[in-house]
Amino acid sequence: MNAEQQAVTVVGLGSMGSALAAALLDRGHPVTVWNRSAGKAGPLVDQGARPAATPREAIEASPLVIACVLDYDALHTVLDPVADALAGRTLVNLTSGSPEQAHEAAAWARSHGADYLDGAVMTTPPGVGSPEMMFLYSGSRSVFDAHRPTLAALGDPLYLGTDPGLASLYDTALLGLMWSTMTGWLHGTALVGAEKTPATEFTPVAIRWLTAAVTGFLTRYAAQVDAGRYPGDDATVDVQIAAIEHLIHAAAARGVDNALPELLKAAMLRARAAGHGSDSYASLIEVLKSPAEDK
Amino acid sequence: MNAEQQAVTVVGLGSMGSALAAALLDRGHPVTVWNRSAGKAGPLVDQGARPAATPREAIEASPLVIACVLDYDALHTVLDPVADALAGRTLVNLTSGSPEQAHEAAAWARSHGADYLDGAVMTTPPGVGSPEMMFLYSGSRSVFDAHRPTLAALGDPLYLGTDPGLASLYDTALLGLMWSTMTGWLHGTALVGAEKTPATEFTPVAIRWLTAAVTGFLTRYAAQVDAGRYPGDDATVDVQIAAIEHLIHAAAARGVDNALPELLKAAMLRARAAGHGSDSYASLIEVLKSPAEDK
Ligand SMILES: NC(=O)c1ccc[n+]([C@@H]2O[C@H](COP(=O)([O-])OP(=O)(O)OC[C@H]3O[C@@H](n4cnc5c(N)ncnc54)[C@H](OP(=O)(O)O)[C@@H]3O)[C@@H](O)[C@H]2O)c1
Ligand SMILES: NC(=O)c1ccc[n+]([C@@H]2O[C@H](COP(=O)([O-])OP(=O)(O)OC[C@H]3O[C@@H](n4cnc5c(N)ncnc54)[C@H](OP(=O)(O)O)[C@@H]3O)[C@@H](O)[C@H]2O)c1
Repeated sequence: MNAEQQAVTVVGLGSMGSALAAALLDRGHPVTVWNRSAGKAGPLVDQGARPAATPREAIEASPLVIACVLDYDALHTVLDPVADALAGRTLVNLTSGSPEQAHEAAAWARSHGADYLDGAVMTTPPGVGSPEMMFLYSGSRSVFDAHRPTLAALGDPLYLGTDPGLASLYDTALLGLMWSTMTGWLHGTALVGAEKTPATEFTPVAIRWLTAAVTGFLTRYAAQVDAGRYPGDDATVDVQIAAIEHLIHAAAARGVDNALPELLKAAMLRARAAGHGSDSYASLIEVLKSPAEDK
Repeated sequence: MNAEQQAVTVVGLGSMGSALAAALLDRGHPVTVWNRSAGKAGPLVDQGARPAATPREAIEASPLVIACVLDYDALHTVLDPVADALAGRTLVNLTSGSPEQAHEAAAWARSHGADYLDGAVMTTPPGVGSPEMMFLYSGSRSVFDAHRPTLAALGDPLYLGTDPGLASLYDTALLGLMWSTMTGWLHGTALVGAEKTPATEFTPVAIRWLTAAVTGFLTRYAAQVDAGRYPGDDATVDVQIAAIEHLIHAAAARGVDNALPELLKAAMLRARAAGHGSDSYASLIEVLKSPAEDK
């Protein structure tokens, strides 16, 4: 332990909470831990953590309390009975939830005299502690700035804004991107797999395609989305509709489920029907937005 | 022009064919060009290309002929009448199509005494000439090796195997990944946009998430797919199902179309119903494959 490092309490020692506490210990922070099932503290105590007998004792041990439990119900089960102990301290909540739940938790913390930051962990437990991995935060800027050096032990801290719901909103949006990408990759893997190409042979090519080319399209299209204009200089929706027919045909011929490409094609056809046939793929955002928000 | 560089003919001067010819000229290759509408050769002739009056004259000018026209119908319209001129030469076909069309074109070229490579361009025209961009090739290994130095002028040449359909198969699979990723990104962009976050603010975070974290999941899951076993150590299908509810809820509350996440959730539920609730997301490949191929 390093006396100059801030003392931190970690509440919740599931696979993520344990990784958070271990990363703080690695950086020399005095760490107090508490978990509903006491057994999970063992490995961390071996690494130098101090086990608290109760949530109250845990909170009172440090000016900064990081909570990471299953969900908001679990969070309130643990903290509601000892909310008064949070007064004058900072609660950083890394439990996953909705923006609405983050808003409520921020108001709840404020009502008990605590500072509050909401956060989202954008990695799995083995990635915790790596400066490449993103931790998203939202809420008070000054609270974030005050604790940034400590939070940097967990991963790269990104501050999104004062609305405490932003970290959850980004988290949700990024997970949606992850599921879409993983499912598209699995579809492609099944397609080339039907011709005996191993996934481990296809995937490095897929990753290179994503990182070297597709991310470039996203950057270009982001500017188009903000401008509300979608010039189809590089590739039009009409061209993509012609090309996705090849995918659907090739996958059908190999017995691969086509629900995902059929849905993507339907979205492209809706964009064309809305007059975006000669526009870029970014124009599909117009059909994803609610009718009420169409321009 | 550089007398030591191989002479190349480019047939088809749409936006892609013109970019290919320009990249070859940049590297000092003697380049002969032909296009149905003669006007498109103008800018390339200004850069040093030799315009051919007919497809036959174009083919006879070089031992290597690169074709890049709209589709296979256009390819055969141009080349069938002059197929005999291809004897003893190499045709590299960068026209997009299906694996089946590539197989037919390879057989057709062979029947006329020509070497044949099928290819796929994994970039837009502005990316042509960059060594970061992938060009996929399939067909004879020795033909690929012989022309690799010339093909490197266009981008990084990747050889996939002797089956000439592989380049198209990969192309199709990678485009499917692109559409899935772009649509997931647009959905997330619409979601954060509903809270006034500009696309240009969300997108760098999304790109970092894709490149630093999601690609790591793909690499790990590729090995699981090849092994046919999907240990859910990092995150299970059950956990993802719980998490996607947050996305669907947050998007519905903001009027964002949820067809894509609903489809992803349905795929996750099918995986759970097939007994993969405690497995990783990679197990979804089992429900994407045809019933006949289920293990
Ligand atoms: N794992 C990841 O890859 C990952 C990534 C990003 C975000 N997250 C988020 O991090 C949070 C924790 O995830 P995890 O992976 O650590 O989950 P986990 O391994 O299942 O751990 C769950 C934790 O919540 C506690 N808990 C559950 N119900 C409780 C209750 N009613 N009262 C008190 N404590 C309760 C558990 O205590 P017991 O030990 O007593 O059961 C345990 O400490 C979740 O919100 C998750 O979405 C996880
Ligand atoms: N652009 C991209 O980003 C991109 C990326 C990867 C792959 N590709 C593929 O590259 C190929 C060419 O695309 P592109 O972007 O260059 O398209 P393009 O700009 O529309 O050009 C189409 C080309 O095909 C020719 N053509 C069409 N029908 C013909 C016919 N019946 N007979 C003779 N020539 C005909 C056109 O000749 P005219 O000039 O006389 O009309 C023109 O040279 C396509 O297979 C495309 O999928 C393109």
